[in-house]
Amino acid sequence: MARERKVPVAETAESMAQKQREISVSEFFLKNRHLLGFDSPRKALLTAVKEAVDNSLDACEEAGILPEIGVDITQLAEDRFKVSVTDNGPGIVKAQIPRIFAKLLYGSKFHRLRMSRGQQGIGISAAGMYGQLTTGASTRILSKVKGSKMAHHMEVQIDTRANKPAILTEEETDWLPVFLPVNEEGKPGRPIEYKHGTGVEIVMEAAYVRGKLSVDEYIKQCAIVNPHLQLHYRLALKGKAEGGKGKGEGAEAESTSAASAVTYARAVNRLPEPPTEIKPHPHGVELGLLMQMLKGTAARTLRSALTTDFSRVGDRSALEICERAGLNPKANPTRIAHQESEALYKAIQETKLMRPPTDCLSPIGEAQILAGLKKEIAADFYTAVTREPEVYRGNPFQVEVGLAYAKPGENQELGAEEPVRVLRFANRVPLLYQGGACGMTEAVTDVNWKTYGLAQPKGGLPVGPMVILLHMASVWVPFTSESKEAIAHYPEILKEFTYALQECGRQLSVYLSRRRRQAEVERKRSYIEMYIPHLALGLKEILEFDERKEKQVIQKLGKMLEKTHLDV
Amino acid sequence: MARERKVPVAETAESMAQKQREISVSEFFLKNRHLLGFDSPRKALLTAVKEAVDNSLDACEEAGILPEIGVDITQLAEDRFKVSVTDNGPGIVKAQIPRIFAKLLYGSKFHRLRMSRGQQGIGISAAGMYGQLTTGASTRILSKVKGSKMAHHMEVQIDTRANKPAILTEEETDWLPVFLPVNEEGKPGRPIEYKHGTGVEIVMEAAYVRGKLSVDEYIKQCAIVNPHLQLHYRLALKGKAEGGKGKGEGAEAESTSAASAVTYARAVNRLPEPPTEIKPHPHGVELGLLMQMLKGTAARTLRSALTTDFSRVGDRSALEICERAGLNPKANPTRIAHQESEALYKAIQETKLMRPPTDCLSPIGEAQILAGLKKEIAADFYTAVTREPEVYRGNPFQVEVGLAYAKPGENQELGAEEPVRVLRFANRVPLLYQGGACGMTEAVTDVNWKTYGLAQPKGGLPVGPMVILLHMASVWVPFTSESKEAIAHYPEILKEFTYALQECGRQLSVYLSRRRRQAEVERKRSYIEMYIPHLALGLKEILEFDERKEKQVIQKLGKMLEKTHLDV
Repeated sequence: MARERKVPVAETAESMAQKQREISVSEFFLKNRHLLGFDSPRKALLTAVKEAVDNSLDACEEAGILPEIGVDITQLAEDRFKVSVTDNGPGIVKAQIPRIFAKLLYGSKFHRLRMSRGQQGIGISAAGMYGQLTTGASTRILSKVKGSKMAHHMEVQIDTRANKPAILTEEETDWLPVFLPVNEEGKPGRPIEYKHGTGVEIVMEAAYVRGKLSVDEYIKQCAIVNPHLQLHYRLALKGKAEGGKGKGEGAEAESTSAASAVTYARAVNRLPEPPTEIKPHPHGVELGLLMQMLKGTAARTLRSALTTDFSRVGDRSALEICERAGLNPKANPTRIAHQESEALYKAIQETKLMRPPTDCLSPIGEAQILAGLKKEIAADFYTAVTREPEVYRGNPFQVEVGLAYAKPGENQELGAEEPVRVLRFANRVPLLYQGGACGMTEAVTDVNWKTYGLAQPKGGLPVGPMVILLHMASVWVPFTSESKEAIAHYPEILKEFTYALQECGRQLSVYLSRRRRQAEVERKRSYIEMYIPHLALGLKEILEFDERKEKQVIQKLGKMLEKTHLDV
Repeated sequence: MARERKVPVAETAESMAQKQREISVSEFFLKNRHLLGFDSPRKALLTAVKEAVDNSLDACEEAGILPEIGVDITQLAEDRFKVSVTDNGPGIVKAQIPRIFAKLLYGSKFHRLRMSRGQQGIGISAAGMYGQLTTGASTRILSKVKGSKMAHHMEVQIDTRANKPAILTEEETDWLPVFLPVNEEGKPGRPIEYKHGTGVEIVMEAAYVRGKLSVDEYIKQCAIVNPHLQLHYRLALKGKAEGGKGKGEGAEAESTSAASAVTYARAVNRLPEPPTEIKPHPHGVELGLLMQMLKGTAARTLRSALTTDFSRVGDRSALEICERAGLNPKANPTRIAHQESEALYKAIQETKLMRPPTDCLSPIGEAQILAGLKKEIAADFYTAVTREPEVYRGNPFQVEVGLAYAKPGENQELGAEEPVRVLRFANRVPLLYQGGACGMTEAVTDVNWKTYGLAQPKGGLPVGPMVILLHMASVWVPFTSESKEAIAHYPEILKEFTYALQECGRQLSVYLSRRRRQAEVERKRSYIEMYIPHLALGLKEILEFDERKEKQVIQKLGKMLEKTHLDV
């Protein structure tokens, strides 16, 4: 098969210049689709569902609506699935639909400092782009804005060379609840009638596999950390036998044979505290960014630029910073940007300021974590810790850790000789893949669990029938890739997780010692119960006791021995 | 510090639409700079050097020039460094300089299928953007195009809101070799006079730390896999004492006290085989991409679109595909794109085609790997394997593995009880960070090294005084993030590495058994040598031998025992 290698002509600066070209961000991610979580058919299915559900949850919460979401997965052919996610959110105005669903790097969450699930403006468009790449199909959107009569139906594709949406269909239509949950017998049930909301439907190459990395697991974990969510999940797999008509959509649905549906019921009828948007904290702003902010400020004096564009800079702090930098508080900030920014930057670092406000965060809270764990994981001991907010690179963040320990053998899913299960969450989103690359996993392995009574191989996870839940809430979660599966190893973040884990570990240690003592007591009691009757029988024969006397002796001996041995 | 939480006003579809905005790719990566390898000052220094050197090497090789590169790192303040990299490449035409150095996603390597170090069009602009962010400084470029008299000097910054270059300085100037190597005494040496080339200088927040993750290590490994490279590396660290004037650049260089310089000499005076550009192979093209290619083709018939836009489709294969799909070979490809592309896609999958051409790859080669390992790593046994090219997602790739085993205790850097050292390379670029997340590391841990005579803890790296070198060459390396530090876990790639590792393992196993037998022989011989004299002395006393007789007996006994025991 070897052929003569054609030697390419040597390039010159001029010939190379001819080949230089702009790369659109869509082309970039199309070629690098593993960066977005679309590297295998199995993961693709999960990623698509995750991106759509995250968006729905964000939209509902921002609009102050208790979220009710339908997730509907239908297998159309061996390696082809239709994913449809519908919510009761505020809807999306028509003009924004194409860009939200068919343009990478477009959204409302990137430019603000406030906790939300989405942050990049990539996810749902990437899912649509993957569907388009693998099946040629368009992304279908149906959205009805709260207050309007009609809904909009659109079919869009992404023009990857330009990273721009192409609209294929666009019509006003009645609002149809796209999601029809099935009832227990697998028949279509009562349609859920949302008054408004958004539904998105993507056809893609995918694979459905059960287990710890499945959509099922994602949805289950999602329910744990979002107790205010009502979620209907329907899965229709294609069997070999011809089944009955499923949703009456024609040929493709006709051979659907295995359908299952489950509703994760809302546990709390209250939305989480809505996080507020904050301004950047001066201590987290790098020199270059400071210069850019001063250049672009609407303020007319340095003093007012400092107080209005940043958080935690009051009038007094602003004056202090100016004095320290040797700058006139009334100076034009644009001029500072070019000349004296370095002095200003140093002065800011040296000035004591209050920590950033933390109402931009909405942690789950210890009570909710305990409730979530108790609901989903059968165990004997539960504990949870929510740390105080901290800051990395100027971004406020807060970590939480929950822990559930089952009596060995009592929870089939938690082996006593297995590594503990680690559930990772970022801004209330379950992270299933890339555990090994995640800072949270590292924090768990770095804690010395032997101190708390668990076995732990060197450098590994502790061993035992236990689940550890970790949550990072932040205005900007530093993910290790655009697929948002693992968080980066910032030392500030790891330290907080370590403290939280250690606190939970100490609680666990108290529980485990008590349990060990109890077990010891049980063991001794069982010895006593086993031997005393024999002892009494012996005494009876030697001392010629009657039955009554024998029973008395047994009782007395038992009490005496218990008192002696069990006073622990 | 707690304050009343201001409850944000609930959003509506309309108010949310107001906040939707485009996100520039520069803004995105500025906020996510850990994705580009700029998450810590230490790593930032390495990443900047790496991106610049990769570009220089690519440019030289494409122009058919034996590369000579100067890397000059000067510490300006505790956490501030100047990185300057100069090459003897073909230079860059003036108009392209700003976009190459101050615009993300711009370049010549993304849109072609051919092996090169750079592929994304991000790296060097990202380094400049990081410098700008942390110090406010511009990227300085000096470039002289081969054949022109004058050089261009430019200072550029990146306008991150628009991802566009801003030119601050632009002038014609004499070509000055930016790089002045120091001689052994730490004094500036003879300037290297490149006739043409490009120099880039970036000032950034950084930290220099020696060790396995340092610039030193990167450069050393770079020399191993690029024996045709001549590289001068100069490092000037700022000491506390006031040193002599270094390069006469004024105050900032005055306290430079510790300077070191090293030249990695060229070992081979021949460039590697230049890889050629290929067309996509039809079996690696997804349905959506096929549709896009047909839509955009310059060909006027389906048949000619198939033969000209794809590799390995001859006239006969094209006709076979058309027939199988039930399509007219003379049909308009644009029409096919919309209607019958799925049939065409299936027909392509079912048609047998030659594997993609592989002259797009330029592996290092077994001989060069052995030479590189022998030059840099003192060991007793070396072996190397270059596998035949394979294909993942339509992209040709080729893997290579080298192995060096030192006698325990003979190489201080390789502990006999330590996990083996793994050196990872992608398209001849050393990968230092994120070893744990890399498919190559996984391939090493997945091999059962006990079979080949090495200890190996469960799920871990084998243990022993050994270095394993792994190289993946491909037209598109699937990195796990834009910082290009680890490769994704594509099964096709892992399988190839496994085979190569096993082949090396078998060679190692032969060597280790031989060495064990030799050791056994040595041990026995030393026993014999130890005991025979005593035995002879005993015999001498019993049988009253004289000295001569005693010596004879010793000799005879020795020969006899050796013959009996050492016939292995």
